[in-house]
Amino acid sequence: MDSHQFDSHKLVFFFGDGEAEGDATMKNLLGGKGANLAEMTRIGIPVPAGFTISTEVCTAFYKNNMENPRNLYWRVEAALGQVERVMDSKFGDPKNPLLLSVRSGARVSMPGMMDTVLNLGLNDTTIEGLIEQSGDRRFAYDSYRRFVQMYGNVVLNVQHDRFEKRIERLKEETGKTQDTEITADEWKQLVADFKLIVEEETGGQFPDDPMDQLWGAISAVFKSWMRPRAEKYRELHGYPSDWGTAVNVQSMVFGNMGDDCATGVCFTRDPATGDKRFYGEYLINAQGEDVVAGIRTPQQITLEGKKIINSNLPAMAEVMPKLYGELVAIYRRLEQHYRDMQDMEFTIQSNKLWILQTRNGKRTTKAALKIAVDMVQEGLITKEEAISRVDPKSLDQLLHPTLDPNAGKTVLAAGLAASPGAASGKVIFTADEAEEWAEQQDEDVILVREETSPEDIHGMNAARGIVTSRGGTTSHAAVVARGMGRPCVSGCSAVKIDMADQSFTVEDIVIRKGDWITIDGSTGEIMKGKVPTREPALTGDFAAFMGWVDECRRLNVRTNADTPDDARVARRFGAEGIGLCRTEHMFFEGDRIIAVREMILAKDETGRRKALEKILPMQRGDFEGIFREMKGFPVTIRLLDPPLHEFIPHDKKGQKEVAASLGTTLGEVKERVEELKEFNPMLGHRGCRLGITYPEIYEMQVQAIMEAACKLVKEEKFTITPEIMIPLVGNVKELAFLKERCVTVCERVMASFGVPLTYLIGTMIELPRAALTADEIAKEAQFFSFGTNDLTQTTLGISRDDSGGFIQEYVGKAIFEQDPFVSLEKNGVGQLVRMGCDKGRLTRPDIKLGICGEHGGDPDSIDFFEKVQLDYISCSPYRVPIARLAAAQVALNNGNGKMKKEEKK
Amino acid sequence: MDSHQFDSHKLVFFFGDGEAEGDATMKNLLGGKGANLAEMTRIGIPVPAGFTISTEVCTAFYKNNMENPRNLYWRVEAALGQVERVMDSKFGDPKNPLLLSVRSGARVSMPGMMDTVLNLGLNDTTIEGLIEQSGDRRFAYDSYRRFVQMYGNVVLNVQHDRFEKRIERLKEETGKTQDTEITADEWKQLVADFKLIVEEETGGQFPDDPMDQLWGAISAVFKSWMRPRAEKYRELHGYPSDWGTAVNVQSMVFGNMGDDCATGVCFTRDPATGDKRFYGEYLINAQGEDVVAGIRTPQQITLEGKKIINSNLPAMAEVMPKLYGELVAIYRRLEQHYRDMQDMEFTIQSNKLWILQTRNGKRTTKAALKIAVDMVQEGLITKEEAISRVDPKSLDQLLHPTLDPNAGKTVLAAGLAASPGAASGKVIFTADEAEEWAEQQDEDVILVREETSPEDIHGMNAARGIVTSRGGTTSHAAVVARGMGRPCVSGCSAVKIDMADQSFTVEDIVIRKGDWITIDGSTGEIMKGKVPTREPALTGDFAAFMGWVDECRRLNVRTNADTPDDARVARRFGAEGIGLCRTEHMFFEGDRIIAVREMILAKDETGRRKALEKILPMQRGDFEGIFREMKGFPVTIRLLDPPLHEFIPHDKKGQKEVAASLGTTLGEVKERVEELKEFNPMLGHRGCRLGITYPEIYEMQVQAIMEAACKLVKEEKFTITPEIMIPLVGNVKELAFLKERCVTVCERVMASFGVPLTYLIGTMIELPRAALTADEIAKEAQFFSFGTNDLTQTTLGISRDDSGGFIQEYVGKAIFEQDPFVSLEKNGVGQLVRMGCDKGRLTRPDIKLGICGEHGGDPDSIDFFEKVQLDYISCSPYRVPIARLAAAQVALNNGNGKMKKEEKK
Repeated sequence: MDSHQFDSHKLVFFFGDGEAEGDATMKNLLGGKGANLAEMTRIGIPVPAGFTISTEVCTAFYKNNMENPRNLYWRVEAALGQVERVMDSKFGDPKNPLLLSVRSGARVSMPGMMDTVLNLGLNDTTIEGLIEQSGDRRFAYDSYRRFVQMYGNVVLNVQHDRFEKRIERLKEETGKTQDTEITADEWKQLVADFKLIVEEETGGQFPDDPMDQLWGAISAVFKSWMRPRAEKYRELHGYPSDWGTAVNVQSMVFGNMGDDCATGVCFTRDPATGDKRFYGEYLINAQGEDVVAGIRTPQQITLEGKKIINSNLPAMAEVMPKLYGELVAIYRRLEQHYRDMQDMEFTIQSNKLWILQTRNGKRTTKAALKIAVDMVQEGLITKEEAISRVDPKSLDQLLHPTLDPNAGKTVLAAGLAASPGAASGKVIFTADEAEEWAEQQDEDVILVREETSPEDIHGMNAARGIVTSRGGTTSHAAVVARGMGRPCVSGCSAVKIDMADQSFTVEDIVIRKGDWITIDGSTGEIMKGKVPTREPALTGDFAAFMGWVDECRRLNVRTNADTPDDARVARRFGAEGIGLCRTEHMFFEGDRIIAVREMILAKDETGRRKALEKILPMQRGDFEGIFREMKGFPVTIRLLDPPLHEFIPHDKKGQKEVAASLGTTLGEVKERVEELKEFNPMLGHRGCRLGITYPEIYEMQVQAIMEAACKLVKEEKFTITPEIMIPLVGNVKELAFLKERCVTVCERVMASFGVPLTYLIGTMIELPRAALTADEIAKEAQFFSFGTNDLTQTTLGISRDDSGGFIQEYVGKAIFEQDPFVSLEKNGVGQLVRMGCDKGRLTRPDIKLGICGEHGGDPDSIDFFEKVQLDYISCSPYRVPIARLAAAQVALNNGNGKMKKEEKK
Repeated sequence: MDSHQFDSHKLVFFFGDGEAEGDATMKNLLGGKGANLAEMTRIGIPVPAGFTISTEVCTAFYKNNMENPRNLYWRVEAALGQVERVMDSKFGDPKNPLLLSVRSGARVSMPGMMDTVLNLGLNDTTIEGLIEQSGDRRFAYDSYRRFVQMYGNVVLNVQHDRFEKRIERLKEETGKTQDTEITADEWKQLVADFKLIVEEETGGQFPDDPMDQLWGAISAVFKSWMRPRAEKYRELHGYPSDWGTAVNVQSMVFGNMGDDCATGVCFTRDPATGDKRFYGEYLINAQGEDVVAGIRTPQQITLEGKKIINSNLPAMAEVMPKLYGELVAIYRRLEQHYRDMQDMEFTIQSNKLWILQTRNGKRTTKAALKIAVDMVQEGLITKEEAISRVDPKSLDQLLHPTLDPNAGKTVLAAGLAASPGAASGKVIFTADEAEEWAEQQDEDVILVREETSPEDIHGMNAARGIVTSRGGTTSHAAVVARGMGRPCVSGCSAVKIDMADQSFTVEDIVIRKGDWITIDGSTGEIMKGKVPTREPALTGDFAAFMGWVDECRRLNVRTNADTPDDARVARRFGAEGIGLCRTEHMFFEGDRIIAVREMILAKDETGRRKALEKILPMQRGDFEGIFREMKGFPVTIRLLDPPLHEFIPHDKKGQKEVAASLGTTLGEVKERVEELKEFNPMLGHRGCRLGITYPEIYEMQVQAIMEAACKLVKEEKFTITPEIMIPLVGNVKELAFLKERCVTVCERVMASFGVPLTYLIGTMIELPRAALTADEIAKEAQFFSFGTNDLTQTTLGISRDDSGGFIQEYVGKAIFEQDPFVSLEKNGVGQLVRMGCDKGRLTRPDIKLGICGEHGGDPDSIDFFEKVQLDYISCSPYRVPIARLAAAQVALNNGNGKMKKEEKK
């Protein structure tokens, strides 16, 4: 839009004395701050009068070679006139001067733009008026020098320390140490000195004309919109440049003009606990920044607050009972109006209360839950609103042990926050020893390794927490740790492990085997020694809230669980079934790995079948345990997926042990390992490819599944519908080949038990070709489960284990908005998921669709899964509550929320 | 269709005496053989009368519980009556019996189905008629026992050796050694004995009634359609089971009834050379199988033939001049009619000539070219038809040395036919030694390795051929060898290499360093010693033919070439530019690898830039050489693609050398190697990801390209439009980031030379996400080159280096129709290529589209590339002629052939 077209718009929006031209809905035009000031004014809250120059002016400014639209000038003057009338003073008036603040304000809060300029309108003439009004010459000159300093810095770009050094010099010269000791005359001298500094630095006079000051500040706000820092911030957050910023011009009020003045901040409820308790701090004769800065000890606003912190300082309720009453009325009014806990700033000037700002208050997760539940019970908000108020990711804080925030800690190093929670333990460097110390000596241990592999699972399970020096947040260690609910810090490259010495070093600090460390998987920090932790407590509010959440969502939430233990934890967190049970994790447990290795080393099918017979009863037992825990809920079991070489040790010592335990030679073991070696195991001989070359493996697994199910159905009257999942299918013929064999086994087992079960056979969709030909695959598959981890790897051509070298740089350079292994990449991977859903339903309208990748626990990804109408999502047990909440929110956002209107309070 | 519906069809098709109910177009209904018999009859060729039972009867037979449609019986009887009338004899008549042959015949020639039954209709009564007709009792009983033997075996499933042993016993008892010594009575006794054998084996009587014999044979043909061998064959070739087979019932004619009888086979032109020369062999008083079996020496048909082989035996032209004249007239007629070289079988019975079969004759590639060119010049066929007659893949035979077919050879082992051609050389086990022996001692060497890596390139180039014991037809060795035109046998697992001993063994044969071997990369065979080879000669026919090919095609054909040498070879084979110049191959040449390693080991950007400065002039020289060779043709240069670890040795010895040559420690080299190690290098830190993390590498390469181009343009008036290609782009932001930097370098170089060049910047489309978001990527890319190798790997999730373990099994089980790394997989990978084209053109209608994967040289894939209307295909130099011909054929098949009607002869 050019400046000509722009004439038809209203450029400037007045607010003051109960009337405002804007309101809270106009954030895009007035910015967040401007809209809220207008809204408060409208509902009768005492707000210092002012006006907002709209964001469209900013846009026009940039379209018009950095010049203001010509018709802006008289409109600003007109609005200023309205402010003068309401505030009963005059801008630039020597007797009764109106002073202004100028602030930027975009539609979202955005660092990097212009700081506030206060006290605008002061000059050598108007200062006299301020002295007379305030009766405090020192206050007036202090205000004046603050103005010159702020304006010089913020508007005229003079380095801050130029002014600070001048003050320091004055203190040195006069032998003073505190600002409070500086006299009125000294401040007056500094005003003159500051102006000289500005002259030196900018080559121009400091503007004395208040109108010049105002226009300078307005332009500075507009220019700050395109500051590199602001641009960078927008780029990172994906905010477009054409939003523009508004400018808020507001009359000054002073909390530091005497003892009938004060300033404070307050919350309508306790932001730490969520308790319904008005809470805040104030200071007599002070400015806003004094409360925050901590130079003077702030006083409590309420008597209750005074009692809680056991303070001797008088509460505002005692000192200013009338104004306190007004403040209480206002906070109630604002909370009712905004229907959320408010964080307010106020100033009292000469016994008159002004509200300078209100906004929804930041709070802890615990408080967020309590406030949401209380407000529903108070009838203030609906359940749906309550649900939308809590950030799903923040729930994680409630599910894991946390560090005691009051405890001291010595941070050794920081890696990636790979799996949340805090834990302390003795450092151990091998999985076997971790298990041994934990089980036999009942020690708490932290397993520290360069990286983990499936062979370390037992040690990871035995440990309280895991540290790796390599690998990202989706490395083996991270994924498995999240699944087990163990805290994990991954990719901590500062940790240099010396296996020979059984120690690790961080710079020059050496930590030896058996030394205590504490890790915080929510921050990635590794600390020396034992730092106290707190156990999570799922309060009644949590249960009530999650109940509403479950009423609201359309998506079912299942869990990825490989053991009865995992299944039990997940049920406690509300999982409605298992979306992914990885059978290979069972292969590592206890003695069965020996039989598995015997199978892999067998020379022919007969040898493999012999070994598989030994594994059969163990797998059947596993499945029985899992079915038992998940009684009544669906269980999807994935047949063997990883390449066989993952089951054989790659070091000579391990291979020797294998050879000994199987009665074969090291040479034979080595030869087989060599045969199984792959350049790109991710794209190698795994998944259904194993099932096709060694059908007997899948046959054994299906037999174990069906025997376990039939037994429970027959003997204990369970209801079980096993879902057998074939991994890594890329071609319908693979699935057809394997399905035929699976069905044969299923029918045989059912016949032998005399139990007619319903069972489903389906597939993972985790290769691009599977999604591209989902219409063909759906002819054979009764369900699809999108394996978005592998689908991301193949679609983007990025190995998640190797992405460490560049993915942070990619996110930093904004090539990726987010790590695609954390949040589903929608244009490419999402396009394939959508295609898979559409094509699958085309062939088989009732096909069951789910997702079992890491993305199943990511709220942003869950929004996408709602949009493509999956039936369920599946994630690790500890992410189940997060997924439940996210599922409810996306159902509401996408108009799929099940909760009925009548049910609202 | 059930037997009721079937009534409306004509089931049986008569042919004989110049009239036929079928013709050559009815192959689907009558099978290939039946349709041709009908066609020959129609055009007046003397064919023994008979009838064909259609393939639909076979289908009905299977739909109807293996019973014939009821109305088949009278129709067969009616057709039989027609045959009897034409042949003037009667089926089952004791005086003048009609005898029949029964053969299966599907729409394509298919092994595994029923063999022929001859002499059907003989029994103890009709034998008397045959004795009288032939006047030869011994001939008659020999014919009878042959019938019982064939019928017993083929129709009644009695093991062949049961009969053979009986003949052996007779010979032992009588002291005879040859069949010819057996008397009429002895054959008669054998007939009786054979019938007893049948009785013993089947528990039933041998059918004496001729009609029972006929229906038994017809059913046997139908049943043979579902034989496991036939089913397997169909499965492998993807032929559906519902095609069914026809049954051909035809009257017998005998070439062995006396000296006025004969039998022979002939070709209308020489199938080895293509010369226009009637050619064939015959035998007096013999059966067809005698000519083939080689028991008697066959005689030449023509005098010319007699002269050529210097034979004393009389030619047919001499012995039977009238019949010879008839045969000449018939072969001319058939070649004219079928408009192709024919392979014919004939029989003369009592001075009457019968033609039993004609079909398009198999021929060598050389002959195919000559025949096609001659026939165009004779006006028999059009150029387009000539083009369609030559199998593109067969051209390969003409481009490489071949083994002398007359030379003896001792085959040691066979691996995969990875790169065509034959070569002999001394066995060498390391690339360095191969180069040394070849260059300094001027020896022919064959490089034998477990597998090759980019470090071996110089040795591969120096060798005459390459053998690997691991890896498939798309392994590094195979791909590089094809590119260089070196014969290669890959994945020969029988070859066990012992590096310490500098030898390899195949079972118990040991071949040591320096021993001679010969390899045939067209068959995969490895032979002991030196087997003579023949050099290829591109004849005038080849040039003429390829000229027409080039007139016809729409697709441009470029080559993948990394060196001026490659470029020169490819130009000779007709390449019209370079579609893929891999800059990394240059990194290995000579001393520059030292600078490359210095760059990789550098600690920071400054260090890298210092090393890159050393590489710059060398790369500039490479590009200059390539531009020079390709003068006037486009050259697409791909910036660095492989992960950096490929450039550093992985063995300790090599690392020590690197450390020494760079003046650093082994520890530092090791540490960097460790840092660069990747789990899945294919999906790792490579391609444009390197360009983004180390922009200075790409900047150097772009500078080298532009400086080379500007220099030639300025100093030698070349016309060059460099095409700079960024690999592995998955996201338009990657391309945008790098393009900006490339453009900066290009502009700087052009300014410094004062040369305004046109240059293009484009990308590989080799990741699924690139194809899925091609519309976005096309905003930045001026061209796309589909990298179908990597696109196949990622779309299918299969590492081609690791696919050896299961891909053959996949092809065997018909899960893949073909190896997807050889022939483009269309449903998945092809779907993405099509999507990439469509979306790319949507954004940028004139975007240049090409393909530079291995598939660029595969005819079946080229058909797909024509369908999606790529602008060009690019393949290794030795495949360029194949690609040219395939491109012409697909242009014609898809209606895009450029050749104009008027140009046809």
